[in-house]
Amino acid sequence: MAKEKKQPRPKAQTPKGFRDYFGSEVTERAHMLAQIADVYHRYGFDALESSAVETVEALGKFLPDVDRPNEGVFAWQEEDSDWVALRYDLTAPLARVYAQYRNDLPTPYRRYAMGPVWRNEKPGPGRYRQFYQCDADTVGAPSVAADAEICAMLSDTLETVGIPRGDYVVRVNNRKVLNGVLEAMGVDDAPQRDAVLRTIDKFDKVGEAGVRELLGKGRLDASGAYIDGVGLSEDQAEPVIAFLTSQGADASATLSNLRAAIGASAVGAEGVNELETIATLLDAGGYGQDQILIDPSVVRGLGYYTGPVFEAELTFEIFDEKGRKRQFGSVSGGGRYDDLVKRFTGQSVPATGVSIGVDRLLAALREKGRIGTQAQGPVVVTVMDRDRMADYQTMVTELRNAGIRAEVYLGNPKNFGNQLKYADKRQSPIAIIEGGDEKEQGIVQIKDLILGAKIAENATLEEWKERPSQFTVPRSDMVAKVREILDGQ
Amino acid sequence: MAKEKKQPRPKAQTPKGFRDYFGSEVTERAHMLAQIADVYHRYGFDALESSAVETVEALGKFLPDVDRPNEGVFAWQEEDSDWVALRYDLTAPLARVYAQYRNDLPTPYRRYAMGPVWRNEKPGPGRYRQFYQCDADTVGAPSVAADAEICAMLSDTLETVGIPRGDYVVRVNNRKVLNGVLEAMGVDDAPQRDAVLRTIDKFDKVGEAGVRELLGKGRLDASGAYIDGVGLSEDQAEPVIAFLTSQGADASATLSNLRAAIGASAVGAEGVNELETIATLLDAGGYGQDQILIDPSVVRGLGYYTGPVFEAELTFEIFDEKGRKRQFGSVSGGGRYDDLVKRFTGQSVPATGVSIGVDRLLAALREKGRIGTQAQGPVVVTVMDRDRMADYQTMVTELRNAGIRAEVYLGNPKNFGNQLKYADKRQSPIAIIEGGDEKEQGIVQIKDLILGAKIAENATLEEWKERPSQFTVPRSDMVAKVREILDGQ
Repeated sequence: MAKEKKQPRPKAQTPKGFRDYFGSEVTERAHMLAQIADVYHRYGFDALESSAVETVEALGKFLPDVDRPNEGVFAWQEEDSDWVALRYDLTAPLARVYAQYRNDLPTPYRRYAMGPVWRNEKPGPGRYRQFYQCDADTVGAPSVAADAEICAMLSDTLETVGIPRGDYVVRVNNRKVLNGVLEAMGVDDAPQRDAVLRTIDKFDKVGEAGVRELLGKGRLDASGAYIDGVGLSEDQAEPVIAFLTSQGADASATLSNLRAAIGASAVGAEGVNELETIATLLDAGGYGQDQILIDPSVVRGLGYYTGPVFEAELTFEIFDEKGRKRQFGSVSGGGRYDDLVKRFTGQSVPATGVSIGVDRLLAALREKGRIGTQAQGPVVVTVMDRDRMADYQTMVTELRNAGIRAEVYLGNPKNFGNQLKYADKRQSPIAIIEGGDEKEQGIVQIKDLILGAKIAENATLEEWKERPSQFTVPRSDMVAKVREILDGQ
Repeated sequence: MAKEKKQPRPKAQTPKGFRDYFGSEVTERAHMLAQIADVYHRYGFDALESSAVETVEALGKFLPDVDRPNEGVFAWQEEDSDWVALRYDLTAPLARVYAQYRNDLPTPYRRYAMGPVWRNEKPGPGRYRQFYQCDADTVGAPSVAADAEICAMLSDTLETVGIPRGDYVVRVNNRKVLNGVLEAMGVDDAPQRDAVLRTIDKFDKVGEAGVRELLGKGRLDASGAYIDGVGLSEDQAEPVIAFLTSQGADASATLSNLRAAIGASAVGAEGVNELETIATLLDAGGYGQDQILIDPSVVRGLGYYTGPVFEAELTFEIFDEKGRKRQFGSVSGGGRYDDLVKRFTGQSVPATGVSIGVDRLLAALREKGRIGTQAQGPVVVTVMDRDRMADYQTMVTELRNAGIRAEVYLGNPKNFGNQLKYADKRQSPIAIIEGGDEKEQGIVQIKDLILGAKIAENATLEEWKERPSQFTVPRSDMVAKVREILDGQ
């Protein structure tokens, strides 16, 4: 004991870059993920929860021959054993799981996964070292019907969680079309290819004219700096411009523009055909262009993926930190990638998948008032007489049996003001009071705390003054009256 | 690329002691935890999801001055920074969170937490290094009304997830009563006290006579070894015997027996009074003795906890690995503990809580046939004609819109046998077939795979032969017929 006292007290803090989630932060996320899981399940996707800890060897991105292979991951060496690490995403574990269990799993294997991942990166505002991911992937299906299915599922998912039709669009593009464009341009050396890709990425910012300049001689940017161009001729640049501006009035117009952009390229034609198949399948599924759109302006991920790519964007406007209106933007992205498990087995296995930005989608739902608007606090039964806890216990039991969230005050009941302060901190909608007098008369007092707060804020308004925020009801009517007030709040 | 080829392929394996969870293993657990969260929420408990990573300093059990403080935990040192570790339970993080946010949290603070914890221990059969815990605790409530509430909530929880009244009992005891018994015995030196506690723990195995011998001169055990006794006189041993055998016909009989066992001990009287209060509150809440029982034979945890202790036991019988009948046993335990946050703040804060053994409760529900009985596979729409994917896509969309889990076959459709093998692996209840002929006639074939499997098993039975497992229905009746078959399966 004496020893213990000499030591300084430990600091009660999360490690740097980590945080805790309280109450509705937890339940709202859980509810949204359950809704998403429901859609995925209906599409035939099976849940997978892989272990949070993987061998560094299986994660693969990090070399075990350096002293500490923790670039970007949290890794440590077990005694007399391998380096292990916390998973940094849900795709690397999927590759390991599919390779490990491929003989037992169905092919194609549709799986979804939801859970925390960990990144050993510099934390920043809103950037934590532990955060949720929510993925769905189809492994072993070479057909773009699998990609179309994922797009349809993404559209259904957004509408199910509360983003109405018209407030989002799933955009679809194809890496193979871009490859066809590069072929049509005659660009085949790697550095020039990368330069073209980087330029395409800037289309959003600099527009068509800007891209023309950057593909050619170069461009003076807004800051006055001169950006060197890729050095292509105008003819060479033409297919890229045609590609970036190929969006037509409908899918068939867009596809026809894309066919022009890719010229005679075989891989390009394959890409356009794939987009056409996707458009046909989605049309058969009843999806409109306002829900899922063939859109060549989707360039994010074109470098990483090998076939179709998709991105879900929320199109309603919000105010940013500086008070300016802007579109909410992307909440999900994905696409087709090859060689998921080749590292393990040597076999090439095609896969396509999508990842939802859990925190961003939650933020969008809060923005739309879909979650977080309901008072979540419990009805608080106050304790006027500490010897009658059994009476108060009976009250909360009655309320709970009626499906009403309720609790009895369990702190020191001496100071009644503290009980109301507690109810306030709990965001309680209603407090119940039963003192000795009430007990004798067979009544209870019911305090509408939400109305009470409104009256306190607007004490001068006649309209509030006329409405009482505290009622007396017979004890036997307590549950019914509470239900009535809650329904009206 | 050449470099990569020289390296051996990574092994596709979880680290030792870790495992993955597939399909219904994930969804059944998630469903049970959601049901539990629902009950906890109705009781006014708030969700808390603390970070999975804690500083070793905050976890407190492990000393950072040894080279590697990983006894029992997974710990590592961040560059130029503290040792951190994966949480090994949900109580240590609660202590840290309460100390960190105590000025913002309500007092009392009721919180529940569910999630994985990690133990760096030797894995064994059914023992993994990552597993789920599910806890509820009330912090800052000294009153045993908080303990009674937890017992009531535990009873409600078990009935809600599917353990019916009569198949479980929540047993309640109190550490203070035991302290009173030790006082009444005149046992006050620590080693003798510990010896008495160890002996009490053996009551289940050796019975009353055995405990008498072990408290006195000693005992010859079943193996023929002689176990030294504690060396107490018969008079001294009497209070322990009275304590262990004090279970009466009802709570008041038990409490009266306990009062006799503790003699004049003040702390003992306090303990019995607390049990009496708990019994009164639970009676007021409508709980019967068959649900929650004051039971002095609960000794597990008496050493660790400081006041009331509780344990939920499932009373129905199962067959163990050796085919013998035995009671299912404990699925949950808890009690009151002091000084939750004293390490951090120096202040004593009382707390009481309960932990549910997630895997054991899931196993019990499976045993009772409450989960895992329903076929979970999707309806599989087979692909007879790869050019008509849009038709098949339309079919799955119709099925999903009717709330039916359904998928189109996305593998290579050439070999139809493979499609049926796939449906089998998916535990699919129904396959849909539409070839060119069916398309022309406006019909589809519906294959009842569950009935088909039964017929295959019992091919000689007339009753099966008469029932067709494959039907032809008009295309427009497809959804209705599938619904009818699913409802009958």
